[in-house]
Amino acid sequence: MLTMLKDGGVCSPKGFTACGFTAGIKASGKPDMALLKSEQAARCFAVFTTNKVKAAPVLYDKSVLEHAHFASAVIVNSGNANACTGEKGFRDSARTAELVEDQLGLAPKSVLVCSTGVIGHLMPMDKVEKAIPHLIQGLHENASEEFATAILTTDRVKKSLAIEIETAKGKVTVGGCCKGSGMIHPNMATMLAFITTDLGLPLDFFAEFRADISDSFNAITVDGDMSTNDTCILLANGVSGIKYEDLSISEKSEFRAALMTVMKELAKNIARDGEGATKFIEIRIEKAESHAESLKMARFIGTSNLAKCAMFGEDPNWGRILSSAGSSGVNMIADQTDLYFGDVQVLAGGRPLECDQKKLEAVVKQREYKVTLVLNIGEASASAYTCDLSYEYVKINAEYTT
Amino acid sequence: MLTMLKDGGVCSPKGFTACGFTAGIKASGKPDMALLKSEQAARCFAVFTTNKVKAAPVLYDKSVLEHAHFASAVIVNSGNANACTGEKGFRDSARTAELVEDQLGLAPKSVLVCSTGVIGHLMPMDKVEKAIPHLIQGLHENASEEFATAILTTDRVKKSLAIEIETAKGKVTVGGCCKGSGMIHPNMATMLAFITTDLGLPLDFFAEFRADISDSFNAITVDGDMSTNDTCILLANGVSGIKYEDLSISEKSEFRAALMTVMKELAKNIARDGEGATKFIEIRIEKAESHAESLKMARFIGTSNLAKCAMFGEDPNWGRILSSAGSSGVNMIADQTDLYFGDVQVLAGGRPLECDQKKLEAVVKQREYKVTLVLNIGEASASAYTCDLSYEYVKINAEYTT
Repeated sequence: MLTMLKDGGVCSPKGFTACGFTAGIKASGKPDMALLKSEQAARCFAVFTTNKVKAAPVLYDKSVLEHAHFASAVIVNSGNANACTGEKGFRDSARTAELVEDQLGLAPKSVLVCSTGVIGHLMPMDKVEKAIPHLIQGLHENASEEFATAILTTDRVKKSLAIEIETAKGKVTVGGCCKGSGMIHPNMATMLAFITTDLGLPLDFFAEFRADISDSFNAITVDGDMSTNDTCILLANGVSGIKYEDLSISEKSEFRAALMTVMKELAKNIARDGEGATKFIEIRIEKAESHAESLKMARFIGTSNLAKCAMFGEDPNWGRILSSAGSSGVNMIADQTDLYFGDVQVLAGGRPLECDQKKLEAVVKQREYKVTLVLNIGEASASAYTCDLSYEYVKINAEYTT
Repeated sequence: MLTMLKDGGVCSPKGFTACGFTAGIKASGKPDMALLKSEQAARCFAVFTTNKVKAAPVLYDKSVLEHAHFASAVIVNSGNANACTGEKGFRDSARTAELVEDQLGLAPKSVLVCSTGVIGHLMPMDKVEKAIPHLIQGLHENASEEFATAILTTDRVKKSLAIEIETAKGKVTVGGCCKGSGMIHPNMATMLAFITTDLGLPLDFFAEFRADISDSFNAITVDGDMSTNDTCILLANGVSGIKYEDLSISEKSEFRAALMTVMKELAKNIARDGEGATKFIEIRIEKAESHAESLKMARFIGTSNLAKCAMFGEDPNWGRILSSAGSSGVNMIADQTDLYFGDVQVLAGGRPLECDQKKLEAVVKQREYKVTLVLNIGEASASAYTCDLSYEYVKINAEYTT
């Protein structure tokens, strides 16, 4: 049985503590550093940006995880991305991790580093060094919200949750939080996500985690750009005393469902919180040739400016959806497709239907709705999650001046 | 020697006549049908949208050109795309061509059809049939502008030009026009382009034409969407009495240069005329591994909303350019790249430079400028042409209501 926990987050699973702190990296005076710690070394899986331009903390974390899949803590800062900072930037990430390791008495290479913020500036290491003792001293168990707050930039919606699973051996919890709205300074739309669990996970669970990412964090699209710092980290510390291998088949699938729900809800909240977004839309592709192809098409439509402007204008513009689908490079037969806004069918076999205009208008005026394109050429399906393209998006992204 | 002709267009080469007419397809009462005719059957090359959802006239023209590479005339309408209209739509395109063939006494399958406009509506064939005799009667030699006007939708900039080449055997002319700004009703950003020449061209020139399209019409990007109707047609009627094979090597390259210039200038004018555009930007990639990769990266950056909003905001945001380049899937080494806005260098070896801020501001305040990213990993280069993303773009594309 899955139970959504009230005010749940990264500290909901057993054995995790956290802390947030205002180090002064952000000019705004808002919290800008955070530490997440596991009471024992946790199995760690991480997926990073595929951008060819990778920030220093991404390069550092990759180097750490290349040889081991364990971590004891993650230190995060917002306000400076430590990207395009060359070798000095890499040494700064490494130095930050070492300071935390030394002061917490942890083994070398057991702390990961994440950064988000302005790019092209060296980290203010004096501020970072001064903050670390405060972060360590402040570690406590009820810090889910504090941690989630300190990693935010311009996010408007809280993105934190946790789910508890009853197993025959006892309770297991999955928690998570993320930041994902863009940054004003400068808008790189960096996504950082942290997932925690007190279940013990085997090394080969990494494949499952990667697959879940493709249907959650990789299924959302605000503007199609990928940042230099995007990172998703899973820490599984086993403090519940329960191992994944010990679960029954149905408990395993409950845990998978809980993990997927945590990741998908966090991801959806990123799209809901897209810059200037007034609508949250699920683009659903059904009866496609493969899952990968349907996800590709859904994402492509979710990135179409023409489709997203129509959503903002509350215009059920099926032409833009169909044309974007046709441009996606995914196989389809125009004359076989059906299209729905909400549950109102607007296309049958590629031809427009006379439909109830009042009902159709009501669908596209909603804050959240679903667009379903049925290709009728296979059995696979997938969803992507997007937001509309508004004046506010242009304003936010045009008004930042270097 | 190349000479740009004053008020040149599709009728500038010998043996071409044209006409525009108001058939009443557009509710606005503006000209909405056009006919272009060659006095003798012309060698015809055409490149069509790769969208899986193809409009009826695209399917019809492809069927005509599958077996022969000749055409005597092209009939165009604006106001109705004849897309998502099923078999009836195809028969309407065929019927339109047949009416022109019959009334002009041309061979079957010698007339091509192009449409642009609202999708999902059957063609008003009564209006089309009534217009055809008027179009034929009105054919005349100085109709470049008239033809160019009748194919327009919401375009603000005239997109017509012609270039004359002196050869040892006499004059040869290349003319062209296009429409490319989006349509309010509904905005599909359809591009139609017509290129004419009185030089005789061999069948194998098609490869050259396709290559030229990749650096002209395929190098521009307004919003990354491809319409159901995009078409580019080249008609070479040989009426100058001169054949491509008869030209000297240097004359051949002069002709190639003229053709490329006509296509590139038309394409650039589409980007200049992008919906709501206030800026026209050339994205130049240099020292890349291959021409195809550099074009891919340039196009990718030219489609980035974050980069395009920064252009609108007159913000020299190198971070968005570099991050978009890194997301393009094209090989690059971040620490080796140099970046310039105009001639102001802002990045060297992937690191920001202290540069003259006043000079940099002056560059990004211009109506047109160039962004050059030098990858320093090869010898290839290419440019894409784009416009900024403005409030007006969102407004135009949100306010249409079906």
